[in-house]
Amino acid sequence: MRQNLARRAALLDAAIEVLAREGARGLTFRAVDAEAGVPIGTASNYFANRDDLLSQVARRFYDRLLPGAVASMEEVAGRTDRATVTQLMRGIVERVSEFRSGYLALLELRLEATRRPELRIQLTERIRADIDANIENHRQAGMPGDATSVKLLYLALNWLILESLTLPDVFDPAQRDELIVAAVERLIPE
Amino acid sequence: MRQNLARRAALLDAAIEVLAREGARGLTFRAVDAEAGVPIGTASNYFANRDDLLSQVARRFYDRLLPGAVASMEEVAGRTDRATVTQLMRGIVERVSEFRSGYLALLELRLEATRRPELRIQLTERIRADIDANIENHRQAGMPGDATSVKLLYLALNWLILESLTLPDVFDPAQRDELIVAAVERLIPE
Repeated sequence: MRQNLARRAALLDAAIEVLAREGARGLTFRAVDAEAGVPIGTASNYFANRDDLLSQVARRFYDRLLPGAVASMEEVAGRTDRATVTQLMRGIVERVSEFRSGYLALLELRLEATRRPELRIQLTERIRADIDANIENHRQAGMPGDATSVKLLYLALNWLILESLTLPDVFDPAQRDELIVAAVERLIPE
Repeated sequence: MRQNLARRAALLDAAIEVLAREGARGLTFRAVDAEAGVPIGTASNYFANRDDLLSQVARRFYDRLLPGAVASMEEVAGRTDRATVTQLMRGIVERVSEFRSGYLALLELRLEATRRPELRIQLTERIRADIDANIENHRQAGMPGDATSVKLLYLALNWLILESLTLPDVFDPAQRDELIVAAVERLIPE
């Protein structure tokens, strides 16, 4: 069973790379097998169908980001000023941006969801759970700002990441950092 | 010449529909001809190559939104309070969301730009010009808030539109409106 879980994860990681590189249309079981370096037919043993594979890719994206998120919350434990929120937001933007293929794969999934109702339902649940968890973590850690602050930071920083991963020269790194600082200052009332 | 410009525009509109429906990989000259209902070979007479077509699609997206933007600025001429900015932002979100295929096509172009350096350069210029125009219009109309306000509104509202077009149930219409109101209130200091 341990073997199986590791292989499933490896297949999902391969699917992320294929999605980021080739787009949703390039994602076939065969392409995933090739990317993972496993015998043809392996992926089809692990996923019921393409929708199942696509839904599990979204979960895998969040699973891979979780350890970094937990570590960064532990690092600031006990601190609750706005500078701490800025530090956390910088950390999120950095970690998500570094997982470039994962973020691009998730965008491909969103576009694919406009064509696949079942995937849309699954993705909606996953994204909602992520937003709710962000709000709850923010509250439990005693950070300043309300649920609206968290939602508006989610909106602004997501587009900042999308911009930097798709058109990296629209804002340079210094401008991106200024926008993170300004977003926290303005979206979290003193 | 008038005929030619109209046909070029019709081909670009067809390309937008193909991109939104099929993704970047589905965009071929042949698919554009079929969507526009013109003889096979027409699109290849109007665009030097696929990169040329893709770049012109981005320009067409902004051209189609321009009349609505101008009309909405004229509607509020002389008013410069925050409620007016809220009204303008609601209008932008509504007009862009209604041009669903255009916005989805632009997202496909952004993802395609990660694979095509020439398209990335063209798109970067177009998006930068749009942000600069937003900042300049805001300033010239005497609206409250600074360039940072405009950039942060650009980030937050773009993701709000992306969310509503790809996963419309993450936020319901009332929540989306509350987020627009809160974004203006917080991003534009009194």
